[in-house]
Amino acid sequence: MSLDDVLARIDADLPAATDRLLDLLRIPSISTDPAFKSDCDRAADWLVADLRSLGVAAEKRATPGHPMVVGHAGDSGPHLLFYGHYDVQPVDPLELWDRDPFDPEVQQTASGPVIRARGAGDDKGQMMTFVEACRAWQAVHGKLPCRLTFFFEGEEESGSPSLVPFMQENADELKSDLALICDTGLFESRVPAITTMLRGMLGEEITVTGPSKDLHSGMYGGIAMNPIRVLTRILGGLHDESGRVTVPGFYDGVPELPDALRSQWEALGFDPAAFLGDVGLAVPAGEAGRSGLEMIWSRPTCEINGIIGGYTGAGFKTVLPSQASAKVSFRLVGDQDPLAIRESFREMVRAMVPADCKVTFQGHGAGPAGSFDISDPAFEAARNALSDEWPDAAAYIGCGGSIPVAGHFARLLGTTPMLIGFGKDDDQIHSPNEKYDMESFHKGIRSWARVLDALT
Amino acid sequence: MSLDDVLARIDADLPAATDRLLDLLRIPSISTDPAFKSDCDRAADWLVADLRSLGVAAEKRATPGHPMVVGHAGDSGPHLLFYGHYDVQPVDPLELWDRDPFDPEVQQTASGPVIRARGAGDDKGQMMTFVEACRAWQAVHGKLPCRLTFFFEGEEESGSPSLVPFMQENADELKSDLALICDTGLFESRVPAITTMLRGMLGEEITVTGPSKDLHSGMYGGIAMNPIRVLTRILGGLHDESGRVTVPGFYDGVPELPDALRSQWEALGFDPAAFLGDVGLAVPAGEAGRSGLEMIWSRPTCEINGIIGGYTGAGFKTVLPSQASAKVSFRLVGDQDPLAIRESFREMVRAMVPADCKVTFQGHGAGPAGSFDISDPAFEAARNALSDEWPDAAAYIGCGGSIPVAGHFARLLGTTPMLIGFGKDDDQIHSPNEKYDMESFHKGIRSWARVLDALT
Repeated sequence: MSLDDVLARIDADLPAATDRLLDLLRIPSISTDPAFKSDCDRAADWLVADLRSLGVAAEKRATPGHPMVVGHAGDSGPHLLFYGHYDVQPVDPLELWDRDPFDPEVQQTASGPVIRARGAGDDKGQMMTFVEACRAWQAVHGKLPCRLTFFFEGEEESGSPSLVPFMQENADELKSDLALICDTGLFESRVPAITTMLRGMLGEEITVTGPSKDLHSGMYGGIAMNPIRVLTRILGGLHDESGRVTVPGFYDGVPELPDALRSQWEALGFDPAAFLGDVGLAVPAGEAGRSGLEMIWSRPTCEINGIIGGYTGAGFKTVLPSQASAKVSFRLVGDQDPLAIRESFREMVRAMVPADCKVTFQGHGAGPAGSFDISDPAFEAARNALSDEWPDAAAYIGCGGSIPVAGHFARLLGTTPMLIGFGKDDDQIHSPNEKYDMESFHKGIRSWARVLDALT
Repeated sequence: MSLDDVLARIDADLPAATDRLLDLLRIPSISTDPAFKSDCDRAADWLVADLRSLGVAAEKRATPGHPMVVGHAGDSGPHLLFYGHYDVQPVDPLELWDRDPFDPEVQQTASGPVIRARGAGDDKGQMMTFVEACRAWQAVHGKLPCRLTFFFEGEEESGSPSLVPFMQENADELKSDLALICDTGLFESRVPAITTMLRGMLGEEITVTGPSKDLHSGMYGGIAMNPIRVLTRILGGLHDESGRVTVPGFYDGVPELPDALRSQWEALGFDPAAFLGDVGLAVPAGEAGRSGLEMIWSRPTCEINGIIGGYTGAGFKTVLPSQASAKVSFRLVGDQDPLAIRESFREMVRAMVPADCKVTFQGHGAGPAGSFDISDPAFEAARNALSDEWPDAAAYIGCGGSIPVAGHFARLLGTTPMLIGFGKDDDQIHSPNEKYDMESFHKGIRSWARVLDALT
């Protein structure tokens, strides 16, 4: 039996594979919101059952948060681990969805069929590309291609609080020759890619408290400090006029791009105006003098992801609120130290809060950036396998997002991570109307079959 | 029959008067939220019926927004108009209320009985002090004390959009010798007061739009402009280091306090530390070098009353949002021109918005400050009448809040407004658990009986 048989089996099984994915997408496994705890548990159960149907010895493993799913199969050949996450982002603003985010369907669009649901692209659809490739392999060959470990997390969208302890406690079980991760994208929706450079992330929530209760601004306005005034002054000063982040020491450990990579990136022909034009913008907002790809792949950033305080309903209310809060995240590169930046940020904020106001902080994840070794010949083998499946040859690229687990594999387990994904720029992950192209799903499954064939 | 008979009647009727007020407080007449439109209408109907029970020819008068209630009675003596408003503030954050805001009750507290409900203090309780004084007068004398016009508005808490057109269209009907307004407070909860200086108000809502949809900050962070960054930079720069407002031309028309008034205010013994200490603060937040009473009565201010953007739920979401918005209000004094400040503010904001982002504005009221003539001997007569009712002698004071209708009476109708109210500093108007002291209600009714007796 050959790779072609596996690919044919994948093609024939696509409708059933799609139905299985839709089934998983119906489970609202939003990890950040405690209201969905039992749904996260249900998604883990679903995966355990599905892996067992492939002959994988899978089980749900408890953590202080949502459970992990770990499964093992095979006993010969290289030991490959595959990582994905079954949890999804919250869905608000719900009113901007065209349909129930957890009532998935295949929709016909001008650019082909898409699977529409929260989690379709991030990460359930991507995760299932690998599982379905294994299913087809098993159906054709009667066994899986090599020794395989499946490792699914349920807290990726909420800072992965249980991940590092779990990996440390189960290091021997999770060590492998290569950690395959499917949570990244194609380059510009068309070029298959292995992502070798990822930004890290630091999440911080700040709450400023002024008066002990909400006040009427007529009576107290002018004499009582308004926490929104304090908060906006802090946040409004996080970038200087040239777009640089002002947190002291923030750029410590930020490397300049090596010339070789700079040339390779320039050859990709990235057009910032077109990239921004797709979302109604035109002017790159990053540091002056940096290229578009540097801004999204190799330069660190600071974003305010949310802010709230005072009266935010319809109409007007002249309240002077007691509290205001914001969620701020930093994307990190090179050797930036997340914990040092957290301390520096908090110190800077504290210095800007008046003596009679209070500020509290809540950390939401702190992971360093990753830049991964591609000297293992498996990388060139995988790149060639991807090039066989897609019209364009595969590229090594950077990624603006943070996938801390990749760094954990390298640092905690000594396992090289290999990031291959099939997401497209317009998948609207983390946004309303998230989707995953049927092409991504179908060619993604075929890609993994080719990669497994090449690596085993 | 004497004033004493009226006062005795007020004392005897207090339980019934309280029941009537509770009845009115049960109607959730939140004017700023369209969901409560029919409730506003219901409150107007309630007032029409109540005034008619006093023999007042009252009717509900349509406007493009919520209706006015206008009633006339009597045909001899001076023509006094009484103004109040039947609409109330929104109730959020609802979770901070100890009970349903529209299920009023009389509660015993350490400082005496209070009427607890949204609108108890602002303005239904205050408004009914005058109506109940009239009811007692009518019961004792068989008629009202003079020619009276009742004028109740239902849009005071939402910028009074219909007020000026209505006053202009019905100028002849509403012109009177004196416009009595009950929407202010005692001085420091103890000294009866006639308010002669009111700050004006300008309300502005700003919405900044960056990308055309919410984005994932991993993919777009660093290159796409974040509207919260734009908004916080604007708002964070509205005050300089000395606490002055930075809108160009903002201080045009702001007068220095006359020496006579400065001495009188100094004699009031206002203690900013104690005033702020009541709400958990300590440091006056206004312009450097200004006294506490100047900050709340005679200096202009800028407050951010609300801000929202991005993900504000539990946990963390690395979204780069499409929009962020804020509600900003300015308290105005002297001859500051609200419309000129609105234009200057909008121009300043527009200049700070990047070329590929958009900003929109929504105005929420624009009323100049008022400083009212007290040369009419009615003022000294009313002040003496108030002094008779309360332990301390009555004072002429300023007020940090804005009561635009007072200025409209003076400017549009040539009628001198006289602001007498019985609110206390801890009434929590515009906040959760609003209340009105039974002492305010009872002595307020008695105060109006004395004032009516003195003026007629």
